Amino acid sequence: HSSKLPNLGTSIFTYMTGLANQYQAINLSQGFPEFDAPKLLKQGLAKYCDLGFNQYAPSPGLAPLQAQIACLIGRQYGIDVNPNDTVTVTSGATEALFVTIQAITHPGDEIIIFDPAYDSYKPAIELAGGRAVHIPMLAPDYAIDWQLVAAAITDKTRGIIINTPHNPSAKTLKQADFDELKALVIEHDLLIISDEVYEHIIFGNTPHISILTDAELFSRAFVISSFGKTFHCTGWKMGYCVAPKMLTQEFRKIHQYVTFSSFTPAQLALTDMLAQEPEHITALAAFYQHKRDVLVNALQNSRFTILPSEGTYFLLLDYSEISGLDDMSFCEYLVKEIGVAAIPLSVFYQTAPGDKVIRLCFAKEDKTLLQAAEKLSAL
Amino acid sequence: HSSKLPNLGTSIFTYMTGLANQYQAINLSQGFPEFDAPKLLKQGLAKYCDLGFNQYAPSPGLAPLQAQIACLIGRQYGIDVNPNDTVTVTSGATEALFVTIQAITHPGDEIIIFDPAYDSYKPAIELAGGRAVHIPMLAPDYAIDWQLVAAAITDKTRGIIINTPHNPSAKTLKQADFDELKALVIEHDLLIISDEVYEHIIFGNTPHISILTDAELFSRAFVISSFGKTFHCTGWKMGYCVAPKMLTQEFRKIHQYVTFSSFTPAQLALTDMLAQEPEHITALAAFYQHKRDVLVNALQNSRFTILPSEGTYFLLLDYSEISGLDDMSFCEYLVKEIGVAAIPLSVFYQTAPGDKVIRLCFAKEDKTLLQAAEKLSAL
Ligand SMILES: CSCCC(=O)C(=O)O
Ligand SMILES: CSCCC(=O)C(=O)O
Repeated sequence: HSSKLPNLGTSIFTYMTGLANQYQAINLSQGFPEFDAPKLLKQGLAKYCDLGFNQYAPSPGLAPLQAQIACLIGRQYGIDVNPNDTVTVTSGATEALFVTIQAITHPGDEIIIFDPAYDSYKPAIELAGGRAVHIPMLAPDYAIDWQLVAAAITDKTRGIIINTPHNPSAKTLKQADFDELKALVIEHDLLIISDEVYEHIIFGNTPHISILTDAELFSRAFVISSFGKTFHCTGWKMGYCVAPKMLTQEFRKIHQYVTFSSFTPAQLALTDMLAQEPEHITALAAFYQHKRDVLVNALQNSRFTILPSEGTYFLLLDYSEISGLDDMSFCEYLVKEIGVAAIPLSVFYQTAPGDKVIRLCFAKEDKTLLQAAEKLSAL
Repeated sequence: HSSKLPNLGTSIFTYMTGLANQYQAINLSQGFPEFDAPKLLKQGLAKYCDLGFNQYAPSPGLAPLQAQIACLIGRQYGIDVNPNDTVTVTSGATEALFVTIQAITHPGDEIIIFDPAYDSYKPAIELAGGRAVHIPMLAPDYAIDWQLVAAAITDKTRGIIINTPHNPSAKTLKQADFDELKALVIEHDLLIISDEVYEHIIFGNTPHISILTDAELFSRAFVISSFGKTFHCTGWKMGYCVAPKMLTQEFRKIHQYVTFSSFTPAQLALTDMLAQEPEHITALAAFYQHKRDVLVNALQNSRFTILPSEGTYFLLLDYSEISGLDDMSFCEYLVKEIGVAAIPLSVFYQTAPGDKVIRLCFAKEDKTLLQAAEKLSAL
């Protein structure tokens, strides 16, 4: 019996976190916060579980949580979405991405993705019988060359996955990108999967440009977000997908057979959190901008070249002045010899460009960041 | 853009629970308990969340939970499985089923399923590009005609999904079924998906026959179970898949891109529950046998013909003496006019046999069962 994903092993995050634990290194590889979820959220989980809300939620999500998500979208982007028709709660953004890709990809379809690409996109496309068409973005700018995108579109192209703020490059798409995107998706009738899981983590008071704010783009889009990133609870695996009614119907048909529904007490706790502490979200960008600055400042005297981080909780470092190793070997060296785990960028490329760049996660206590920076500065 | 699942709407469980709520009927349709999860489990969730275990679990599951699952298998079936290589924790048995089906089904493959079949099997097979081959089982016995199975096998047949105790028929497979199954899967080199989510709910002191207990069958099998059914917490969406190392590797490749991992505090709470209150599981069969008997006794004077329930928390009723309506119309009548929601059996068939049979869930308080029975007995 042959494998459905023959060329695939364990995800880079599992591999690197495993090495970090094995070598007791500071783990700046897999993206997860070192700080805990807000008290109100944790108390809510305990409360609703204790009260006995432990049976199936409706497959699209609990109505009060759908409503709070719609409120958040209203506050954040000034637009109205109908929670019942457009919002579906999922078991993490990973499930939302997977389901969306299954919903739009027919066998033989091509889906355009930008490398470096989050590692789940391509296997999800291939499991649907589709083909990922890779458009490279290169260090240090990671800008999208829209000419390349236009040239890659064929009559098999079904959709395009964008991600802003972008993991792993920490870049954000600009209005000019959206203009280009819009022209192409309209001309070629493409669907959009918009991975916005870091929507609330964007720096320098730049507003996040969500697909939700452009009615014409949103009419053909699935927008995916993550409570794990927003509320420091990646282990809760709670996320959601917002899409127009017709697309949501297709999404839900699949979602109901992938997980059916998501953790009920968490849905209720998230509802209260969104309703009662909106300031957690509005404070998030400044919170992470501080973290970024702590790490950047502490690396100022290192031999790494620091690439600008415009959003997400990641920072890229170019190590070409330090080592000639390829980035996977360099990361293995870092975790084993230096005591810091990072993620090599090449794993996110179909065709690795040979850039000497690694990714650090700065969702950590200041002292952890300072310790890691000290180790890295010794190089 | 065309639909991936054009002939599919909302799941019957969503539809019927919706109607039950709308008409304030007693909801014996969707299978979920009216009683709460055990105290220890609920306290564990609150405790581990409060202690800050809120970030990603490893994708295959937390090691202590994998170990406790292996212990349970040891206690229950007297066999040793290596937790690290064979046990994967999932976001409900639904996810485990979905991932397993994706892992084994290549485009064009045929997967044999027995009708009435749990509603997620077929869409999951179709999303993988496969074809579900339906073998009917008929009222009142719902026995498998193994001649039909043998005749349905082609060179495209990749696997076979069995389910015991069986939802919705409430029948269990017997040793003779396993003998037939074994001969066929060996002769034709087929894989087995064994849906054993009701493994602990089996009546009359009959032992559950698990695929796990036959080394030769298990060498080609994925065995799926559900904490939701076992611990009265269907809303937690926690389950697992046990499979030999090579099959587990394929399973995990896909699982890591479907949900990546499952709710961390719940994994820790389940670990303690399995370790500290094994008697919850050993008492479960008697607990549900009592429920079944309450419902059966209360329906003794009704005009329904009661079919034997050997396991699960479901009971089938033949209503042919009461009404000539098809089963969907009869269920709509029941929920709207009589105040009891049930599930029509025909929805679980590719080709509905015209049996006049409905399914009731008896995972309810005794008084709820008595109330429902009173309403049904008035017919
Ligand atoms: C699901 S583990 C990966 C976490 C993450 O988003 C990242 O590190 O990029
Ligand atoms: C996931 S909702 C369905 C619950 C269930 O297993 C059933 O009612 O058969």
